[in-house]
Amino acid sequence: MLIIGGSDAGISGALRARELDRSVGITVVLADNFPNFSICGLPFYLSGEVPDWQSLAHRTIAALADQGIRLLLNHTARLVDPTNKIVTIDDPERKSLKLQYDRLIIATGAVPIAPPIPGLDLQGVYFLRTMADSFAVYRHLESADTRSVVILGSGYIGMEMADAMRRRNLNVSVVGRSSTIFKTVDAELGLMIEDEPQRHGVKVAAGVAAEEIFRNGRRLVVSGTQGFRTEADMVLVSAGVLPSTELARSAGIGMGYRDAIGVNRRMETNVSDIYSAGDCVETWHRLLKQSTYLPLGTTAHKQGRIAGENAVGGSREYAGSLGTQVVKIFDLAVARTGLRDTEANSAGFRPGSVELTAFDHKIYYPGAHPLRIRITGDKQTGLLLGAQIVGHYQAEVAKRIDIFATALFHGMHVEDLNDLDLSYTPPLGSPWDPVQMSAQKWMCSEL
Amino acid sequence: MLIIGGSDAGISGALRARELDRSVGITVVLADNFPNFSICGLPFYLSGEVPDWQSLAHRTIAALADQGIRLLLNHTARLVDPTNKIVTIDDPERKSLKLQYDRLIIATGAVPIAPPIPGLDLQGVYFLRTMADSFAVYRHLESADTRSVVILGSGYIGMEMADAMRRRNLNVSVVGRSSTIFKTVDAELGLMIEDEPQRHGVKVAAGVAAEEIFRNGRRLVVSGTQGFRTEADMVLVSAGVLPSTELARSAGIGMGYRDAIGVNRRMETNVSDIYSAGDCVETWHRLLKQSTYLPLGTTAHKQGRIAGENAVGGSREYAGSLGTQVVKIFDLAVARTGLRDTEANSAGFRPGSVELTAFDHKIYYPGAHPLRIRITGDKQTGLLLGAQIVGHYQAEVAKRIDIFATALFHGMHVEDLNDLDLSYTPPLGSPWDPVQMSAQKWMCSEL
Repeated sequence: MLIIGGSDAGISGALRARELDRSVGITVVLADNFPNFSICGLPFYLSGEVPDWQSLAHRTIAALADQGIRLLLNHTARLVDPTNKIVTIDDPERKSLKLQYDRLIIATGAVPIAPPIPGLDLQGVYFLRTMADSFAVYRHLESADTRSVVILGSGYIGMEMADAMRRRNLNVSVVGRSSTIFKTVDAELGLMIEDEPQRHGVKVAAGVAAEEIFRNGRRLVVSGTQGFRTEADMVLVSAGVLPSTELARSAGIGMGYRDAIGVNRRMETNVSDIYSAGDCVETWHRLLKQSTYLPLGTTAHKQGRIAGENAVGGSREYAGSLGTQVVKIFDLAVARTGLRDTEANSAGFRPGSVELTAFDHKIYYPGAHPLRIRITGDKQTGLLLGAQIVGHYQAEVAKRIDIFATALFHGMHVEDLNDLDLSYTPPLGSPWDPVQMSAQKWMCSEL
Repeated sequence: MLIIGGSDAGISGALRARELDRSVGITVVLADNFPNFSICGLPFYLSGEVPDWQSLAHRTIAALADQGIRLLLNHTARLVDPTNKIVTIDDPERKSLKLQYDRLIIATGAVPIAPPIPGLDLQGVYFLRTMADSFAVYRHLESADTRSVVILGSGYIGMEMADAMRRRNLNVSVVGRSSTIFKTVDAELGLMIEDEPQRHGVKVAAGVAAEEIFRNGRRLVVSGTQGFRTEADMVLVSAGVLPSTELARSAGIGMGYRDAIGVNRRMETNVSDIYSAGDCVETWHRLLKQSTYLPLGTTAHKQGRIAGENAVGGSREYAGSLGTQVVKIFDLAVARTGLRDTEANSAGFRPGSVELTAFDHKIYYPGAHPLRIRITGDKQTGLLLGAQIVGHYQAEVAKRIDIFATALFHGMHVEDLNDLDLSYTPPLGSPWDPVQMSAQKWMCSEL
C-alpha cells in the first residue's frame, strides 16, 4: 500500500490500515520531512504561543515507524501509471525511482491561492501552507527589524494570523475583499466580530481588493481598490487554497466539484485501486446530499481513515461533512455548522433564521459570557439547517456548535432540540441550554 | 388551569401554556413567595459567590405577572377532589379556600430525605431544599461564630456544599455511606475525583454511616460507623430527596416507580385532567425504556413544558431522560450521561467500558487540561450506552457530555461517533475530539 502525502489524510489512512491489518506493507511518500504536522497550529507557533515547532507534530516519526509505517521523506511523487500500478518519485537528490503499489491513496492536500497581482515574488511576501513557509516567516520575524505586516485575506486563517502577529506586537493591517471579515458566518455575526480585531489594534480594510505589491526602499507597499495603500515590513498572503491535483491528473483520474479530485463516499477515485482523501478531494455534504469543497483538518482525518480502511478491504462510507468549524480570534470563538441562509436557499430549502443572545451559564454565577447564536431552520419542514455561535472562547462555544452538529447529523427538527437531555449546573449552563433557547426562539418567531 | 408548585416544572408549564394559548386563565399556587427560583444555585449563594439571593430567580414575579400568570404566594394546597375538580388550599393566614380547575398540574417537587438518626431537630442542623432553609443557613453562617461544618451525604449536592463552605474558609467534613464520593459516576472515576475535595482541605469520611447527632456545649457532635466522631458548629444534611406526593395521593392518583407519582409520557396521571411533572414524578428513561426516578432541574423544565402544552390541548410526549448531569466541584467538572455498567447490566445489556485520558485541546497550545473519559457500549450490538467525563471546569466537559447525550438520544453506535463532524481549532480541540478518541479506544479494546 502506497500513500502519497504525509499530512492529516495520508497519515490517518496509514494508521487505520495498520490498525486493521498488521501485515500489510505501508509506505508514505512525502515532499518534506514533517509528517503528520498540525498545520492548523502554525499561527500559534508564529505568535510565540507554541515555543517549540516540534511540538506541532501529531505524532513523531519514531511513533509512525513503530507502527511499521515506512516514511519516504523529501520524496516528491511525479507521475502515476495506473495500468502498471507504478508511481514515479523524485528522491531528495532528484533521482527518479519507481514504486509499485497494490492500493494507492493520493493525499496531496491543497496549495495556497495566489491572487492575480504583481509583487507576490518579492522578498518579504509569504504564503503559509508548509512547515518551510513557516520557518521562513519565523526567521523574518525574529531576525529582521520587522515591525509591521499586511495580511491579504480576511478569512479565518488571515484573522488567526492577525491575532498571532498582534501577540508579537506588530502593526497589523488586514485587507479583505468581502465587506465583512469571516465570510464563513453570516454578515450579521460578521459585523459583530469585526470589532474584535479592531479592539485589539488590527486595522481592517474590508471590501478592498489588493492590486499590487511593490517595494519602497526596505519596505513593501500594498495598494488596492478604494484608494487603499499601506506600507509594511512584511506581507502574508492568505487568500484560500486550491486542491492539489496534478498527480491525480497524471493518473487520468476524473475531477469533481470545483476541480477537486472526484471521489465517491468510499473515497475511491474513478481509477481502480486508487483512493484519495483530504484537502485535494471534493467532499460529500450531508445536508446538501452532493459534493462540495471543504478543506478542513477534521475532514481530512476522517476521509483518510476511511480511505485507509477501504484500501485494506473495508467498505466504509464517508458520512458527510456539515462544514462544522471553530476559530479563536483574540478572546472570541467563532463557530458554525450546517447551512447558512444563502447556502440553504441555493439548495432548495426555505430557510428562516433567528438570532439570540444568551449567557453561557446562569448569569447570577460569576464570569458569565454572552453568546450570540444564529439558528437556521427550514420554514416548511421545521428541519434544522445550521447554526452559528460567537462568544468568549471560554464559553464552550466550540462544543455547543458540536451539539448542533450532532443534531444536524441526525436530521433533527428545530423543535426537537428541546427534547435533548443536556447537562446543567449553574456555573456551566442553564436548565435550557442556549442551544435550546435558540430553538425556542425559532419556534416562536414569525419567519 | 391550576398549577400547584411554583418551581421549575410548575412555572415552565405555566409559561408554555401561555405561549400556546393567550386566553387561558392560569393560576400558580406556591407554598412560599419565591416562584421560579434556581434552587440549584443555592450552594453558590451560601458560598458568597452569588452575593444577592434575588438574582437566583429565573424570572421575577413581575415578569410572570406580565405573562398574565396569577400567582398565589404562601398558599399551600391540601386536598384535591378530582370528581368536582376542586383543590382545597390554605391561604397565608391558614384560612381554607377552594379553587376550581379545568386542568390541574401537580408540580409539588421533592422533600429532603431525613436519615433515621437522632438529633436532626437540634439547633444548627439544617436541610437544604427551600429558600427558607437557605436563609436560615445563611443567617447561621453570618451571625454565629461558625468555623466548622459537617455535611451528611457525599452526593453531588453534598460536595457542592463542601466546596461552598470551603470558600467561606470553614473547616469542612463530609460523611458519606458509599465508599467513593459521587455515586453518580463509576468507582474508577469516583476515586479520581476523591483527591479534589481533599486537595482543597475537605475531610472526607467515605463508607461511614452517621448514627447520631448530639450537642456538646455550643457544638454539635456527629458520630457514625467505623468509630467516626467529629465536632462542628453546624451540620448540613444532604442525603437525597423523595418525591412529594401527599397532594397527589389525596386525589387518588396512582404511584409509580419508587413511589413517585405515576405518569405517562404525556405527563398525564391516571386521573383525568390531572397532569404532573418535575421532582414529584417518575421519569421515562430513553435507554431503559421504562420509568425511573431522576429529579433534576433540566428534567423538571422539560416535563413542565410538556404538561403545560398538553393541558391546553397539545399532545406532546416526553422524549425521555438520559440522566445527563454535570457538577462543578472546586476546579473539576464531573459529568455523566446514559447508563453505567451496573445500570446497563441490570437492564439486560452487555456493557463494556474503557477509559482514556485526552487533552481538551492540542497539548502544544498553552492551557491544555487532561480529560478523563469513560465510555460504555454494548458489546453485542455496539450501541453507545453512556459516558462519564471528569476534567477541569474550563475544559468544555459539560458540553462534551452533551455531545454524547445528543448521540445517545439518537441511539448511535460507538463506532459512528467517528462520523460526527465536530469543530476543531488547536486552542479548543483536536481533529478527533476526545469524544471520538474514546470511541476509537472502545472499538480497539478487547472487552
